[in-house]
Amino acid sequence: MTDFVYDFHQGSRAMADLLGGKGANLAEMTNLGLPVPPGFTISTEACRAYLDAGVEPAGLASELEEHMARLESRSGKRLGDPHDPLLVSVRSGGRYSMPGMMETVLNVGLNDTSVTGLAAVADDERFAWDSYRRLVQMYASTVLGVDSEIFEKAIERRKATRGVGLDTELLADDWRAVVDEFKTAIHEYTGRPFPQDPLEQLRSAVGAVFRSWNAPRAELYRRHHGLPTKAGTAVNVMAMVFGNLGQGSGTGVAFTRDPATGEPGVYGDYLTNAQGEDVVAGIRNTVPLTHLRDLDRAAYDELLSHMATLEHHYRDLCDIEFTVERGKLWMLQTRVGKRTPAAAFVIAASLLADEIIDEDEALTRVDGEQLSLLMFPGFDPGAERTLVTRGNGASPGAASGTIVFDSETAVDWAKQGRAVLLVRRETNPDDLPGMIAAHGVLTSRGGKTSHAAVVARGMGKTCVCGAEDLDVDTDNRVITTPTGMTLSEGDVLSIDGATGEVFLGEIPVTDSPVVRYFEGALSAEEQKSDDLVSAVHRLMTVADRRRVLEVRANADTGEDASRALRFGAQGVGLARTEHMFLGERRAYVEHLILAETAGEQEAALAELEPLQRADFEELLAAMDGRPVTIRLIDPPLHEFLPDLTELAVRVEHDAATGASDTRSQRLLEAVRRLHEQNPMMGMRGVRLALVIPGLLAMQVRAVGRAAARLRRNGHDPRPEIMVPLVGSVTELRLAREEAEKVLHDVRAETGQDFDCPIGTMIELPRAALTAADIATAAEFFSFGTNDLTQTTWGFSRDDVETEFFARYLDLGVFDVSPFESLDREGVGQLVRLAAHAGRQTRPGLGLGVCGEHAGDPHSIHFFHDIGLDYVSCSPFRVPVARLETGRAAVGQNTDSAGSGSA
Amino acid sequence: MTDFVYDFHQGSRAMADLLGGKGANLAEMTNLGLPVPPGFTISTEACRAYLDAGVEPAGLASELEEHMARLESRSGKRLGDPHDPLLVSVRSGGRYSMPGMMETVLNVGLNDTSVTGLAAVADDERFAWDSYRRLVQMYASTVLGVDSEIFEKAIERRKATRGVGLDTELLADDWRAVVDEFKTAIHEYTGRPFPQDPLEQLRSAVGAVFRSWNAPRAELYRRHHGLPTKAGTAVNVMAMVFGNLGQGSGTGVAFTRDPATGEPGVYGDYLTNAQGEDVVAGIRNTVPLTHLRDLDRAAYDELLSHMATLEHHYRDLCDIEFTVERGKLWMLQTRVGKRTPAAAFVIAASLLADEIIDEDEALTRVDGEQLSLLMFPGFDPGAERTLVTRGNGASPGAASGTIVFDSETAVDWAKQGRAVLLVRRETNPDDLPGMIAAHGVLTSRGGKTSHAAVVARGMGKTCVCGAEDLDVDTDNRVITTPTGMTLSEGDVLSIDGATGEVFLGEIPVTDSPVVRYFEGALSAEEQKSDDLVSAVHRLMTVADRRRVLEVRANADTGEDASRALRFGAQGVGLARTEHMFLGERRAYVEHLILAETAGEQEAALAELEPLQRADFEELLAAMDGRPVTIRLIDPPLHEFLPDLTELAVRVEHDAATGASDTRSQRLLEAVRRLHEQNPMMGMRGVRLALVIPGLLAMQVRAVGRAAARLRRNGHDPRPEIMVPLVGSVTELRLAREEAEKVLHDVRAETGQDFDCPIGTMIELPRAALTAADIATAAEFFSFGTNDLTQTTWGFSRDDVETEFFARYLDLGVFDVSPFESLDREGVGQLVRLAAHAGRQTRPGLGLGVCGEHAGDPHSIHFFHDIGLDYVSCSPFRVPVARLETGRAAVGQNTDSAGSGSA
Repeated sequence: MTDFVYDFHQGSRAMADLLGGKGANLAEMTNLGLPVPPGFTISTEACRAYLDAGVEPAGLASELEEHMARLESRSGKRLGDPHDPLLVSVRSGGRYSMPGMMETVLNVGLNDTSVTGLAAVADDERFAWDSYRRLVQMYASTVLGVDSEIFEKAIERRKATRGVGLDTELLADDWRAVVDEFKTAIHEYTGRPFPQDPLEQLRSAVGAVFRSWNAPRAELYRRHHGLPTKAGTAVNVMAMVFGNLGQGSGTGVAFTRDPATGEPGVYGDYLTNAQGEDVVAGIRNTVPLTHLRDLDRAAYDELLSHMATLEHHYRDLCDIEFTVERGKLWMLQTRVGKRTPAAAFVIAASLLADEIIDEDEALTRVDGEQLSLLMFPGFDPGAERTLVTRGNGASPGAASGTIVFDSETAVDWAKQGRAVLLVRRETNPDDLPGMIAAHGVLTSRGGKTSHAAVVARGMGKTCVCGAEDLDVDTDNRVITTPTGMTLSEGDVLSIDGATGEVFLGEIPVTDSPVVRYFEGALSAEEQKSDDLVSAVHRLMTVADRRRVLEVRANADTGEDASRALRFGAQGVGLARTEHMFLGERRAYVEHLILAETAGEQEAALAELEPLQRADFEELLAAMDGRPVTIRLIDPPLHEFLPDLTELAVRVEHDAATGASDTRSQRLLEAVRRLHEQNPMMGMRGVRLALVIPGLLAMQVRAVGRAAARLRRNGHDPRPEIMVPLVGSVTELRLAREEAEKVLHDVRAETGQDFDCPIGTMIELPRAALTAADIATAAEFFSFGTNDLTQTTWGFSRDDVETEFFARYLDLGVFDVSPFESLDREGVGQLVRLAAHAGRQTRPGLGLGVCGEHAGDPHSIHFFHDIGLDYVSCSPFRVPVARLETGRAAVGQNTDSAGSGSA
Repeated sequence: MTDFVYDFHQGSRAMADLLGGKGANLAEMTNLGLPVPPGFTISTEACRAYLDAGVEPAGLASELEEHMARLESRSGKRLGDPHDPLLVSVRSGGRYSMPGMMETVLNVGLNDTSVTGLAAVADDERFAWDSYRRLVQMYASTVLGVDSEIFEKAIERRKATRGVGLDTELLADDWRAVVDEFKTAIHEYTGRPFPQDPLEQLRSAVGAVFRSWNAPRAELYRRHHGLPTKAGTAVNVMAMVFGNLGQGSGTGVAFTRDPATGEPGVYGDYLTNAQGEDVVAGIRNTVPLTHLRDLDRAAYDELLSHMATLEHHYRDLCDIEFTVERGKLWMLQTRVGKRTPAAAFVIAASLLADEIIDEDEALTRVDGEQLSLLMFPGFDPGAERTLVTRGNGASPGAASGTIVFDSETAVDWAKQGRAVLLVRRETNPDDLPGMIAAHGVLTSRGGKTSHAAVVARGMGKTCVCGAEDLDVDTDNRVITTPTGMTLSEGDVLSIDGATGEVFLGEIPVTDSPVVRYFEGALSAEEQKSDDLVSAVHRLMTVADRRRVLEVRANADTGEDASRALRFGAQGVGLARTEHMFLGERRAYVEHLILAETAGEQEAALAELEPLQRADFEELLAAMDGRPVTIRLIDPPLHEFLPDLTELAVRVEHDAATGASDTRSQRLLEAVRRLHEQNPMMGMRGVRLALVIPGLLAMQVRAVGRAAARLRRNGHDPRPEIMVPLVGSVTELRLAREEAEKVLHDVRAETGQDFDCPIGTMIELPRAALTAADIATAAEFFSFGTNDLTQTTWGFSRDDVETEFFARYLDLGVFDVSPFESLDREGVGQLVRLAAHAGRQTRPGLGLGVCGEHAGDPHSIHFFHDIGLDYVSCSPFRVPVARLETGRAAVGQNTDSAGSGSA
């Protein structure tokens, strides 16, 4: 026979699955000897049994009676006693906090007779009738499902009759009359009177709390937060204590440290003569907790002593609810408290310094998302702001600047020393210079993984995207806001990349000291004197020592590589050679595409080689002694040409106005010829290398010659060549044979004998499925989880990551975009399979990942678990990846203790 | 110690892996007591050992000597005997025939002394010196690698000196002089004289044949034919016999049946006073084999008796090479003979009727590709023809017709009773009416799996595609040929869909009796009187009895379904509901897309429902009592709108000429809004159903109402609803819930209680990977192997199936396009995995396949092996699928005996 009910002293903190978070912590406090009102918890198991069967499980009623009898004897009062009645609260409390989602019934035990006993004991008739009124009202809406508006209206009518405006102005008789009216309404509504039997009240309230687990709002909340749907809630039944019994009573919340900064001290709020719900209602202003010292020194001192006990016991910031009833302190709830990212680091470092927790545990107290939030600048908290609209918070931080509508203007104005904000409908790779020059980026289209968002996050640049209410007219350089206001080039906006808010005018911005630390811009002195920075430093040291996964960076230039190095990257895991052909260099690719003879094609390639060689030399030099994985050109070449439709319309326009030129005509022909229905699945990756003669050889020669030259100059270049979009070992073998031949020739030509492993991206399902074969021709695999996600799910990021994804998140098809966090079940299955098969074939096979997911905490833990060697992310995410790889190594779940649970 | 050499009487037909095809069959004939010249075979194992080590394996030389000694004693002659020398031929012969790819050396054993002995024995000095000349020449080029042009030139010089034109006009002295010249050249070229030791000649010749296995042309041949690369060749050494010893000698080939029709009788050719290579050289004309009867009755009768022995022994058509040396018949080679598709059926049925083979074996003697070739019309073989160019033979058959350049004209002219040929650069779904109306389709772009090819094959319509030499100018309705000739609308062309040839003018075409049989257009009488038709009928009966896989058809209309039924389909495995919205009905989809309010959208859907219902009713009625799987709308809706670029250019043009209209403007806006970068991976399939309110409900309601109505009228409709492009069980569950609700309502509304299972396509890697989950919400899976191939390989058929695929076939990345024949290693792995996981979850899960591969013989065998329930292919492929599913059930490999091996 299962026990469904546990007295507080029967439970413990470790029993949160069974007793819920609140019940487990009440048990813990009870066992610590803290003054918790007596009570018991009905387990989540009882809830599950109730919900499965649809009725109260057998045995629960008798257990409830039994525990209630003990509660009566412990409190010295009886339920329904007409002289001094015991009242209890009935509160939900699941394993995970779902604030406001579920039900509570207070003052259970009051009825038409015991209300007079309460009045007598409290010596306050108004209090007693108000309490009774609250019970009837909560019971009616929670248990009986009566529309609560009926009750609100009754109270309003009463106030009108009495000519007063506030509930507090109603007297005992008023509440008595309201109670009568309520009871009549219930009788009419349900056909039965309000139950006078306290035990019936209790059992009904417990059932109602159980049922509230399946309320639509609770289901929605769980779906959105990825919480288990079948866990059920526990129910806590506790003797009522009252903070609203006059000036000697009150209620408050306390934190053992400042949840904003992590500094130790006494933090919290107190409200005299009030109950918890009054604090929530926010009708009266609370006072700082320290005022309690003056109001009730004994209660204050006792509270401080309990706070110290709890922080020491929980070895963490605790968040506490308490009530003072006529001078007697009662502890009503505690939990490990939520905190800001900065506080999380400071607290963890401080507890570590005090040897309260060890290094591994300290790592579990912070997480990568917190760190990333600390790396962005923020608005001056005191500054005034006028909200214009809201988009997606795509890359955190805060930026103010003069708006510009194109990349060129952004660059020009930035050169003149102006802070600019680049505003576009959406961005594409050509906007890169403008994005670099701008302080922030604002787009009216696209989600959190749109081009703008991804690139901005990679650069650590503030970005708000998909602000769909803004009509961005780049032709006329005007934004129209939802209210019809127009903003022109030169006007100033401010954006908050965390919240997605867009504000009018300038708001002062403060820099992140954490980034300055990572950049190496802080002296040892400055580092030490800043609590946050020294905490971050301490925890990064621990993470670096513990982690197994290496962290490399995706970097396409020497500058990127140098920054990544300062941020702690151990190499470049992905250098995208096509990024070297944006902007002005497009012309060179155009020559290659428009070449009509083998000779012209050779000449075009010959133009490209020295440019590539110089790029590679810069990269390899910046990462001297560390691996640099250079990926052969990946996108379809037509991406370097103008858009088909735009060009066709322009040519048509020119023809109509007599302004035709043959170059445009010829270009249009080429664009038409190369046009693809589905470029993502077209002539790209290794297909280019196998189909366009000389392209692969040119790139490999440039790599080889760059390496040879650096070696001659005493450097230690470590290039690796990576072949993209391989689907079959034959493709890789053919590419490899050609590359090896070229490298052999370069070694002969230069007399320099450098190493250059050759590997491949695993980014197609077929590559993953045939990884055992592919490994015969690869020295390393790098999982391209972006493309692998696209092909495994069969959706193109460009096309579906809009309303479609929003709808899918609503429907619960995804908990989170699979482009943000790796889909372990589908894509992850392929990654795991390929990693395993590859290593079976070639035990020393290098395994890394270079998609967006390499910077995502959830995904990093997966990559650690399946035994990859490294993750490679954008330079700005390198510290996050260092921290999360460390956390993964100590076996910590993705969420830190302070940010998820309750 | 391994034996490397086997005397002919030591081998057998079963030892083809070791002895090669030729050696095994020589052994078999020897053991049957047929007059085979004595000889032995050096095994493929010796070849592999030789090629691995690069030198003659230990023991081979002594084995050779030993077997040669036995050969000498058996033939009563000695190698190098100056009076009556033994000569031998040294011929390659692998497991699989590689005609002309490898080397042969004849007359081994001749030298400066034995040549005179040969002259004396043969009483023909010219013959002896010509034979010696042939040995020296073949030896030089094969063993020594001397450029054979040197020798050809020497002979030319000799003929010039002698003032004659033909080799046959050279006399004994001429050949003697040529031999001298050859030997001098060899000495100069190699530094060594031509070897006089017959054993050295033999060993060197054997080594050279071994090495020729790895010649580039042989490697290329194997790669193109998918033959094993490491098998090696055997070498056959046989006493020379001579058909060129005067009028009493000769050589010939014989078939035990007519390889063109399969009729029994004496077929073959004979050439008096000649060797086999003379027949090949084709200098003199052969005579029909029956003439031998008049030339040498004894030899002829003996040959006929051996032919009967062989056909009886091999239980199949045999193809024989023989030589008559001065009246003595020698059997030089035999094998199961190649044959035409018609002959394959007639022979199999005839052997079955004679109880020489049983039903299962009869099935192994024919295959689906042969059957499909018999289903197409052909040109009158006697008709004259003028070749214009050659494209890809995309859908077999022959068609003559007046060329037209658009679908409308095709339909109009066809209505006037004209035979038309639809000519397009490439086709798209809008060309469907024209393709139906036309006798054949010709395109200048696209491969064997382009739209034109796939659709034409599905309809059994003749098609040549990718005739890239033709410049098709549809605007001006003109084709320009490679020679600069122009053809206008109204001119006549003829196309051969098997060879890809395009001819000028009309060529008479004859219909396929096999199709008329399948159509049920032949009377029992006609069926019996046509040997081919009755053979096909017999074998189809066997196949239908044996097969385990059901065969369904892909059909979108009642007409298609009726045809499929006549062809033997057991249901419709795929009805594409979007095909019902082509042509004029596009307007309805346009209304849906352009709807701006929920009301307009509802109205648009309400317009569509009765159309769909009528379509479904027709389909279900045609397939009464058999399953009809109806797929919810799959492609992105913008496919029903005009092309973005074309429309944008038109609007620009209209604007420039002042002819703007708001409808085009509005349409352009919609097209822009719905435009997708990669439509193949965009808003399609189940995504439409989940995002567009009411769309799924409308389609399901139409299915339900159609079924209800048929039931009311006494029919037995069996609809199944199939959800496309599912990647996650949640998508399917949501779609299923809505569909079930609608079906429930329809049942309630109509009072008809029909069944309607709901299943899903498995066409995304993620669906395959999570099939265990998906099966919880699916009553059946239908593998969409087209899309699964696209996503698994990450290439879009539209984009890569052009030069890219040709290049990949050349490079050996594919043996065959993965869209033609299922890629078992990659895509097949997912299919197998999903089928298994699905059945684990739901043991009764229905499993089918409805991609193009369902009609491909190789793929059908795979589907049989992994235990699917049915394949669903285009109606015209149904007989092929019936045959191949039967063949799969008897465990037969895809190739039939007569079409692949030798």
